[in-house]
Amino acid sequence: MSNETQGLELRSLVKSSGELELSLATVSHPEPGPDEILVRVQASPINPSDLGLLLGPIDVAQAKMSGPADRPVTTAPIQPAFMRAMAARADESMPVGNEGAGEVIKAGANAQHLLGKTVAMLGGAMYAQYRLLKAADVLVLPAGATAADGASCFVNPLTALGMVETMKMEGHKALVHTAAASNLGQMLNKVCIKDGVDLVNIVRSPEQAKILTDIGAKYVVDSTAPDFMEALIKALAATGATLAFDAIGGGKLAGQILSGMEVAANMTAKTYSRYGSTTYKQVYIYGGLNTGPTELNRAFGMSWGLGGWLLTPFLMKVGAEAAGKLRQRVLDELKTTFASHYSHEISLAETLNPEIMAGYNRRATGEKYLINPSKGLS
Amino acid sequence: MSNETQGLELRSLVKSSGELELSLATVSHPEPGPDEILVRVQASPINPSDLGLLLGPIDVAQAKMSGPADRPVTTAPIQPAFMRAMAARADESMPVGNEGAGEVIKAGANAQHLLGKTVAMLGGAMYAQYRLLKAADVLVLPAGATAADGASCFVNPLTALGMVETMKMEGHKALVHTAAASNLGQMLNKVCIKDGVDLVNIVRSPEQAKILTDIGAKYVVDSTAPDFMEALIKALAATGATLAFDAIGGGKLAGQILSGMEVAANMTAKTYSRYGSTTYKQVYIYGGLNTGPTELNRAFGMSWGLGGWLLTPFLMKVGAEAAGKLRQRVLDELKTTFASHYSHEISLAETLNPEIMAGYNRRATGEKYLINPSKGLS
Repeated sequence: MSNETQGLELRSLVKSSGELELSLATVSHPEPGPDEILVRVQASPINPSDLGLLLGPIDVAQAKMSGPADRPVTTAPIQPAFMRAMAARADESMPVGNEGAGEVIKAGANAQHLLGKTVAMLGGAMYAQYRLLKAADVLVLPAGATAADGASCFVNPLTALGMVETMKMEGHKALVHTAAASNLGQMLNKVCIKDGVDLVNIVRSPEQAKILTDIGAKYVVDSTAPDFMEALIKALAATGATLAFDAIGGGKLAGQILSGMEVAANMTAKTYSRYGSTTYKQVYIYGGLNTGPTELNRAFGMSWGLGGWLLTPFLMKVGAEAAGKLRQRVLDELKTTFASHYSHEISLAETLNPEIMAGYNRRATGEKYLINPSKGLS
Repeated sequence: MSNETQGLELRSLVKSSGELELSLATVSHPEPGPDEILVRVQASPINPSDLGLLLGPIDVAQAKMSGPADRPVTTAPIQPAFMRAMAARADESMPVGNEGAGEVIKAGANAQHLLGKTVAMLGGAMYAQYRLLKAADVLVLPAGATAADGASCFVNPLTALGMVETMKMEGHKALVHTAAASNLGQMLNKVCIKDGVDLVNIVRSPEQAKILTDIGAKYVVDSTAPDFMEALIKALAATGATLAFDAIGGGKLAGQILSGMEVAANMTAKTYSRYGSTTYKQVYIYGGLNTGPTELNRAFGMSWGLGGWLLTPFLMKVGAEAAGKLRQRVLDELKTTFASHYSHEISLAETLNPEIMAGYNRRATGEKYLINPSKGLS
């Protein structure tokens, strides 16, 4: 008799013929090794950072679903211009889902204490009924916390904490954040308010501004307002923020932030320098809500940096002990600072439905999707 | 009886009314203090890094000269769009000229050993007949070296050495340089060939490529060639260069270099990562030959940085001892590695002549202007 556990796993496949195919594969999980556990995944969020792997560069409006309702297959064409960037993953069926939570249903000899516990997980392939992983790689959720409570306890919470830690490590005294009304942005406000860190929030509508002022944000500027640059400069001067985390990526915003920081720095400069202020100004791009090119007019002197920022390299940089402290803080404040709210709970099959896909791919403020891999399965 | 020394000094003045005015002011230099010297400036180069302060954002074609031939005044309008960036220097008459060389004609009590020596100087206000400065801030040129030999012994040589030092400090193994056939670029090739550092040179014409291959450059790619990206990627893969110094600034080149580095890095990658390679790629912009916006398509993963780079902060970062060693190397190799060649020698008054101005403002490869403040004066 086999002890394997079979279950569905969402797969994303870029075919070199120029097509994306999403499907639900049946995979077999062997018995856990001595230090391993098998988790029944009960909740896994769709984060912006999952969408790149899940959907690639497709236009969701062109996606077509076929096959039976509980085992759909969804396909969409990929424009040739995007295939070069996809070359490295071509014809390789890839599991998806950065983080999730669920119940431990099998445990190896050294992990028996975890049996029946609800744990949070990071590591990919979470859009699946089951996930086999090392016991050391999970966090046991506190008593009373559900899988949904713990499903998002890595990516957004650690990213918010990582931004504040990066600020301290690199010698800045306040922060700027764009797309600031996002789930992550709201969390960052809670962290900053609790820790006494000044945060300049950049949003794209009065409604988004209200979300943040309602939770106590002090500095909120709207990039669609006619006086945006003036308001930004005023907030930058008031806070002394010289570090920004930008989720937008494309367009002029990163450069506008650097320019605003330069103007704010020069307000206190005593002499003219042809190379601009000596104040070091940094913007980290950590997302790509605008996939267009980043445009910099470089009207911000020579003391500046722009770069990419990702959670995993940050955690590796700070080391295991510091990362462990951040994780413990997330658990301690799971239902307060780091509480996530979901607007939709969907099944694995629904994740492949083009209409639902259009919803989560919109990344609209206030909408957050949770996959429940047990939903719709008998 | 006064012991002051009077002489002409070139001044650049941005008027808040929206006009640039260049003139020759008569300034009085007091007797040197105990640790000071007075130098008769005999040679001072026009470096690209001087032009911003000298000419601001004017269109040279609109410059008009008036006044006597030996004391001309040149004016040009400044477009209102540029005045915001000029605000910090408005209505302040500024001396110009980063570096130069000349003969010590007066020396304080503690600097008598320098009397009559030919010294190289850094520190601004070199477009002048005389310069008073601290004895500690000059380099005595080796026997047989003229002021012209030593006039450019700070900015370009230390920048070239600073690029190689930055490469070592930041853990890269090879370099990329743009506008690579410039005086600085040729010097950088000599340094890299001597030190065994691989250097990928990016030029903008076959003629520029020839200048570099003639002095022994191994990797030269022409950004105007139809196969530019392929040739660049090949050179990046061959050298493993992950650090570039870019004199152009505007346009797509910085992003193309990052993209090329990413493709080269992925040639050896074993697994697909949705965030791109983990190889860190850095471009430093140190000039602005293209004053247009920098455009990045961000097709180079998340492990990258773009920033400004300047010589002075670099020298402060490495500290006095390391900087001293670099300066000594410049003196030791003044007539070989760090030899500069000038195509034109002009007077202070000629520097204000719009026709001559058009020549040095063109920054053409192979053309380098030296100001001789004694020229044309009785």
